[in-house]
Amino acid sequence: MAVESIQILLKEPQASGSLSAKNFDVVENAPIPQESDLRDQEILVKVLYLSVDPYMRPRMTCVNQSYVEGFKKGKPINGFGVAEVLASKHPHYQPGDHVTGASIPWTTFSVLNPSNQSLFSKLEGDLAKVPLQWHVGVLSMPSFTGWYGLVKIGQPKPGETLVVSAASGAVGQVVVQLGKAYGLRVVASAGSETKVEYLKKVLKADEVFNYKKVDSISGTLKKLCPKGIDIYFDNVGGEFLDAVLENASLYARIAACGAISQYEKDSQNAYRLKNQYLFFGKRISMKGFLIFDHYKDDYVAFVKDISKRVNDGEFHYKLDVTKGLENGPRAMMKLFEGTNFGKSLIEV
Amino acid sequence: MAVESIQILLKEPQASGSLSAKNFDVVENAPIPQESDLRDQEILVKVLYLSVDPYMRPRMTCVNQSYVEGFKKGKPINGFGVAEVLASKHPHYQPGDHVTGASIPWTTFSVLNPSNQSLFSKLEGDLAKVPLQWHVGVLSMPSFTGWYGLVKIGQPKPGETLVVSAASGAVGQVVVQLGKAYGLRVVASAGSETKVEYLKKVLKADEVFNYKKVDSISGTLKKLCPKGIDIYFDNVGGEFLDAVLENASLYARIAACGAISQYEKDSQNAYRLKNQYLFFGKRISMKGFLIFDHYKDDYVAFVKDISKRVNDGEFHYKLDVTKGLENGPRAMMKLFEGTNFGKSLIEV
Repeated sequence: MAVESIQILLKEPQASGSLSAKNFDVVENAPIPQESDLRDQEILVKVLYLSVDPYMRPRMTCVNQSYVEGFKKGKPINGFGVAEVLASKHPHYQPGDHVTGASIPWTTFSVLNPSNQSLFSKLEGDLAKVPLQWHVGVLSMPSFTGWYGLVKIGQPKPGETLVVSAASGAVGQVVVQLGKAYGLRVVASAGSETKVEYLKKVLKADEVFNYKKVDSISGTLKKLCPKGIDIYFDNVGGEFLDAVLENASLYARIAACGAISQYEKDSQNAYRLKNQYLFFGKRISMKGFLIFDHYKDDYVAFVKDISKRVNDGEFHYKLDVTKGLENGPRAMMKLFEGTNFGKSLIEV
Repeated sequence: MAVESIQILLKEPQASGSLSAKNFDVVENAPIPQESDLRDQEILVKVLYLSVDPYMRPRMTCVNQSYVEGFKKGKPINGFGVAEVLASKHPHYQPGDHVTGASIPWTTFSVLNPSNQSLFSKLEGDLAKVPLQWHVGVLSMPSFTGWYGLVKIGQPKPGETLVVSAASGAVGQVVVQLGKAYGLRVVASAGSETKVEYLKKVLKADEVFNYKKVDSISGTLKKLCPKGIDIYFDNVGGEFLDAVLENASLYARIAACGAISQYEKDSQNAYRLKNQYLFFGKRISMKGFLIFDHYKDDYVAFVKDISKRVNDGEFHYKLDVTKGLENGPRAMMKLFEGTNFGKSLIEV
């Protein structure tokens, strides 16, 4: 008989170092909640898609971060996802409705109280006009991150040079393509030849390099950005950021969106930036941002803009789809190994 | 017979390490230029005051920086100053006029072509209503730096916590007092007990500490800023900045105005920042700026604001006056030793 329900629980928190199967408990055939279990305001959902994102790594420490809660040992992990309502004791939700949210548990079935959920909404209006999968794909949080960081923080002007690290990833793909759409010279970095090929051929970045294959990131950027770097979309932090500071133009803008290179290190082993002193001479601005802050004011504009680009056939968004929730832990490990290619999601 | 003219020439450029007398040539009784030496558009001036500022240290390398030219070996060094016109072949300047500029040579007498001078202007209108010395004092470039960085980059809101490093210096004094005027809780750091006393008693900072006497800057900031740091006016860079990042509030703003702790180090010995990864989680903004960019748009507003505060008797500006141009090299060395106290200037 097929497994009818899966739950992915956090078994062992882990502060630093690589994740492995021992961090997770994959529970098969856990009891399926029933309509009769629902209390007032609760809904019963079947989870359809889950998003696998870098910000889940710091949550594995079980320590609350300034921007997101740690996971809880022994409980299901959670993240962005799409679900279908099976039963409801909440006046706003009916069976058959689809919902999306930022703290959907990694379980096949869940009882949720929408008012305890973060960034939770019913897919209606414009949001219901696109394929369900888009909500963990081209309209996902990482895609919104790329859009916001480039457009609002980068303030691109035609002819400027944009550098994007982790450029084939969930955020980077969006930044590269929007960069081209805004008339920028786009220099992209990725960590495999397949990704480099994709960035050149499909996303049409002007220059692409494999950061693992170059002697010096700084030397490579110097060669590829002869007029200096005007905008850097920083997905990785660490040594790459240092190399960018060295090659930054006057008045360069840095959108600091993540530091995936540092998530698995403890504070003793974190990369130490040597070029901070260049900030004032070059009048560099660096702005850290978390996209959670911007759903309220900017999400609708983002959805409109990107949906139009996708529907016009101008916009690509490569997905890395894992089938089966039982394979969720593996999807997460791949993300931190950098062996995923494209936006990682799970078809539950 | 008294020495009638002095010139301070750059004898030995120096990339890193402490300056000493051997870097300078003090030329006494150099020939005094005469009115008959003037070519069209030139003026003959007697220099009255010179400003001694931290940004002169990188100029001692003789390498052009992105923001300012290096000094030239064998030539007089130069900087902000005030001079009196003795003779003129320029229609806009008459004998008796006073002028100010950013590249006044460290020589008792000079022939200048105003169109080759940077930020050069005749003291007229509002600028002529204040004592001459103010132009290398409370209205000097460092003071403008403090005003701009706090008001425009810091965007202070009453009740917020401001941290100022090098707080008794030429920039810091202005930041501390404006911070109080804007209703901020001001936490100031300096490097001697006398400076600490001055910051507490005269400038009325809420909390002051001697960074040389504490076990840990980060631990001290944690104790003194229980609600976190909202604005950091960074005059020093390095370890202090790291400690601020560790104790920054969400949405903290950092005005990166200088890194005096790093000027005498080469790039191998520069402090390496470990807390860069906190930028996005805490949504920190750091903006490097150079006040030279802002004379055109903001200098008049600054002069009006600060002149009013000084005239109202609310504003202090401690000066560290060196008498005699021949003592100029010593004034510069003191600045980098941190043994000056207050804004350093030379009465020529």
